[in-house]
Amino acid sequence: MYDWAKLQQFCEQVFARAGVPRANAAIVAESLVQADLRGVESHGVVRTDIYMKRVEAGRMNPHAEPAVVSERDMVTLLDGSNNFGAVVGTRALDIAMARAKANGASIVGVRGSNHFGTGAYYALKAIEQDLILLVMSNASQTMPPTGGVRPFLGTNPLCVGVPAGQEQPFLLDMATSVVARGKIIVAAQKGEPIPSGWAIDKDGNPTNDAQAALNGSVLPLGGPKGYAISMFIDILSGVLTGAGYGKYVNNMYENWEEPQQVGHFFIAVDVSRFMPVEQFKRRMDDYIRLIKAEPKAQGVEEILIPGELEHRQTLLRKRQGIRLPLKVAMELDAIGQKYGLDVSAAAFGEGSIMGGSIA
Amino acid sequence: MYDWAKLQQFCEQVFARAGVPRANAAIVAESLVQADLRGVESHGVVRTDIYMKRVEAGRMNPHAEPAVVSERDMVTLLDGSNNFGAVVGTRALDIAMARAKANGASIVGVRGSNHFGTGAYYALKAIEQDLILLVMSNASQTMPPTGGVRPFLGTNPLCVGVPAGQEQPFLLDMATSVVARGKIIVAAQKGEPIPSGWAIDKDGNPTNDAQAALNGSVLPLGGPKGYAISMFIDILSGVLTGAGYGKYVNNMYENWEEPQQVGHFFIAVDVSRFMPVEQFKRRMDDYIRLIKAEPKAQGVEEILIPGELEHRQTLLRKRQGIRLPLKVAMELDAIGQKYGLDVSAAAFGEGSIMGGSIA
Repeated sequence: MYDWAKLQQFCEQVFARAGVPRANAAIVAESLVQADLRGVESHGVVRTDIYMKRVEAGRMNPHAEPAVVSERDMVTLLDGSNNFGAVVGTRALDIAMARAKANGASIVGVRGSNHFGTGAYYALKAIEQDLILLVMSNASQTMPPTGGVRPFLGTNPLCVGVPAGQEQPFLLDMATSVVARGKIIVAAQKGEPIPSGWAIDKDGNPTNDAQAALNGSVLPLGGPKGYAISMFIDILSGVLTGAGYGKYVNNMYENWEEPQQVGHFFIAVDVSRFMPVEQFKRRMDDYIRLIKAEPKAQGVEEILIPGELEHRQTLLRKRQGIRLPLKVAMELDAIGQKYGLDVSAAAFGEGSIMGGSIA
Repeated sequence: MYDWAKLQQFCEQVFARAGVPRANAAIVAESLVQADLRGVESHGVVRTDIYMKRVEAGRMNPHAEPAVVSERDMVTLLDGSNNFGAVVGTRALDIAMARAKANGASIVGVRGSNHFGTGAYYALKAIEQDLILLVMSNASQTMPPTGGVRPFLGTNPLCVGVPAGQEQPFLLDMATSVVARGKIIVAAQKGEPIPSGWAIDKDGNPTNDAQAALNGSVLPLGGPKGYAISMFIDILSGVLTGAGYGKYVNNMYENWEEPQQVGHFFIAVDVSRFMPVEQFKRRMDDYIRLIKAEPKAQGVEEILIPGELEHRQTLLRKRQGIRLPLKVAMELDAIGQKYGLDVSAAAFGEGSIMGGSIA
């Protein structure tokens, strides 16, 4: 097991020693460990290794700050200058939140970015400010269009965060594929098979082999509807912002010649423009309680609100620690050694790499 | 077969004779017939009968104009005053388009509305103005939350329209259910069964009986993801605007005591704030052509862009006419007789109600 705070400190120090300005190193580390805390392993410290490799290869530039291309009224276009996606996304969020407070709502289009972690990382910060946030991003090609056989669209994520009162906030953070490709990456790392219907292999055949799926295509959520949702996210994040789209969004694991050219799209809405915040929160609480009070299907213990499970995981993992797959623990150990840091200082009890047993 | 222009004129005259101001009668008629032209029968003139019944019962008020509740910067809150949804939606769209041109983008939240037809009706008008439009609406309860057994959420539609250059515009207009409930209504009217996986009956059991499905629940698109998407649409359209949400959105076929209390949410974006419109359209054309040029799966003749099929249907049906199910043709005939109008004047050749054969 790993202590979340020490693990976050380890990642922050690694990024800092690799030349990332301290404040930005802290952002990236926080975004990764928050994902592990929420149970979204696919976007957690498992990404540290690839992020470091892209910095070391000069494919990400941690020294160039994101720059505003144009900004008027409530619309801003931001160029990420190929910095870490989490750094670029945080800058875009800060602009979106400030503009929404000033104008009632705001839109920030982003180009020149990289994989920005989870949308939830940004939505949770907006929720703290009583803002509703819609955030989306395109990604490198992993899904075929409906009727196609090879990857064209990314699993372009859609995230929506809404503040509530006494209830947990509404927090949808989904890939537009049947499942997040990261889940398949994790399965491949664990050497586990994947359920049918998740993906097709490179020849377009259904597969339960995680590695074959990674070499093939993840399938869109709900067929043509998921295809269309993924497309409009690519259009807003990429075609409209001047970022890459389709094949022009580069795969961070495979393309070592070019930057990723990822684009994002943020929409922030100030609740108070529609009704007093407290009234809105009471309505959200009522809405959430009505859903949770619905009669349950056989075998269902509880009807959950999007984000509720991840919130509970966070509380649990902050207490009990974060368990990492052996492969990830060993990657972090190697990175630590390279930068004169010891990840085992963040580990405790059995299940840590020091304890040997990881499972 | 029915001539689309004459059918639209018939509907417009019916609404006008029922006391709807001429300009508004024209809007509602155009919205219905456009849906039939696009092949979205579920939102076509099949709705004339229920719209008329609600006006006659005093559950819709065609005489009260929508009123702006608050308007500042780029955020507007509109009260539909319980007018026709298409009238309210058109007013909201006009505000959204004007504000987007002035501010780069705009948001219009709407309460006090009714069933507003297809989102495509609004998106196509925005596309003509080189605007990107996201429009959503909540609806009366037809889908269970994930883990539930009875309807709580509507099949809350999401529509996104994006202009292109020489290619057809991107136009996604989807229900957040596996299929639009209207398709099940049409199946029930035709006395046809529905595919497995579309719906559950009132006891939560899978069913292929269209009527049993209408008495039960339509299932959300892709399970928990569709549940969450439908929820955020309900939150933005209903909880945030002051409209109904969940059980507070009334079923237009079943509740004759109260107005529907439907809410909508419009987001308009001016493409020119991000790059010159012509450059954007070239990028859209490139994007669309890249997708359509993808290798096709076995048996697939063509990879389609969202909205492409409906555009072709429109061209075809404007030439060949609109075929109506006997039940709908007879409803329109009865409505015509009631208001001293003859729908058969819009019919031609076999397949019309005069010709007898409808199939």
